[in-house]
Amino acid sequence: MTETPTFLEDPTDTRDTIMRATYLALCKHGYADLTIQRIADEFPKSKSLLYHHYDGKDDLLLDFLEFMLEHQRERIPAEPTSSADDHLNAIFDRVFRTPMTDDYRDFWRAMVELRAQAAHDEKYRDHFTRSDEFFRELFANVVRSGIDDGVFREVNPERTAAYLQTTITGVMTRRVTTNGDIIEDVREELDEYVRLRLLAGETGDSTER
Amino acid sequence: MTETPTFLEDPTDTRDTIMRATYLALCKHGYADLTIQRIADEFPKSKSLLYHHYDGKDDLLLDFLEFMLEHQRERIPAEPTSSADDHLNAIFDRVFRTPMTDDYRDFWRAMVELRAQAAHDEKYRDHFTRSDEFFRELFANVVRSGIDDGVFREVNPERTAAYLQTTITGVMTRRVTTNGDIIEDVREELDEYVRLRLLAGETGDSTER
Repeated sequence: MTETPTFLEDPTDTRDTIMRATYLALCKHGYADLTIQRIADEFPKSKSLLYHHYDGKDDLLLDFLEFMLEHQRERIPAEPTSSADDHLNAIFDRVFRTPMTDDYRDFWRAMVELRAQAAHDEKYRDHFTRSDEFFRELFANVVRSGIDDGVFREVNPERTAAYLQTTITGVMTRRVTTNGDIIEDVREELDEYVRLRLLAGETGDSTER
Repeated sequence: MTETPTFLEDPTDTRDTIMRATYLALCKHGYADLTIQRIADEFPKSKSLLYHHYDGKDDLLLDFLEFMLEHQRERIPAEPTSSADDHLNAIFDRVFRTPMTDDYRDFWRAMVELRAQAAHDEKYRDHFTRSDEFFRELFANVVRSGIDDGVFREVNPERTAAYLQTTITGVMTRRVTTNGDIIEDVREELDEYVRLRLLAGETGDSTER
């Protein structure tokens, strides 16, 4: 039985209840096999409500993606609350070290499938463009605050953020589309990038670490 | 009209002819809207031949992915033919600087969709695991040869390769699933990683580049 994230438990209004049902159905069936009926199966109210609010599966899923992004916007503080390098590490830990439980894997598999819809559907592409921009800005804010505090070098925050975010997109994509276990290797090299490129006072080191 | 890569022009045997038709249909329709009939529409021989050789669309597409990987294996020399840093740059140029023509975009969109199938289909996952392993080994060979020649530091070649390949997966994925233009930013930071982490004799530099 799929567990929902805390913010989806005990929904109080109709939209939240629909979002919870969508989350459960998406994790259970993935994108390709998802139907409005399968979302309705997770929905305690009348199926006709789904049709009343949405034009179809993709319309509902696009609203679901918005909902998840809104939740991220509310949850994540705009400015780092700890030192910039600790904050960056905490973000990396969430990406790399969150245990790959069945629920977490199901959710990320569905997200990779949803992103792939953006290849041929402009509405999905618009969403992932905005979503990527949001996460890029998050990274850029962390880098900026690190520069202000003298923890990071005077790098270009937007450029650094674009790079970090792209690497993380690669990690999430590969993690659910291959059986290979590359995650620790990638994390170590990402840490090296941060050390050599960002951390003030660090210099290159010709020995293997 | 979609142009096929040189190695798919003028196919001589049945499999190559099927592969060419699959390439054309996949670029034209993407994965979701692809049917055996649409592949048959690009196929100069009898449609029954497709059913004779393949159990269905996914069986055919998995063979197509193998075919493309075999082609890469034959085309790309196992050992670098130029200095390791030039070779790495040439690979990056191919990923980052190949102009995003309509044909190239269509092909990469289809590849991102095919990779997303790996989220729920073990056969696709097996393929992308092997495909990623192949490209990782390519990168590892380049890094190894750079270390042997004293061009690169004594890094861990497998780990470096896993990192480079993950970043490139992120680039290809984001490039066809968003409208944002992050490619030059990511390339510049990737070059910085190579400079600071790999190039022997380079040291950290606290000024913005």
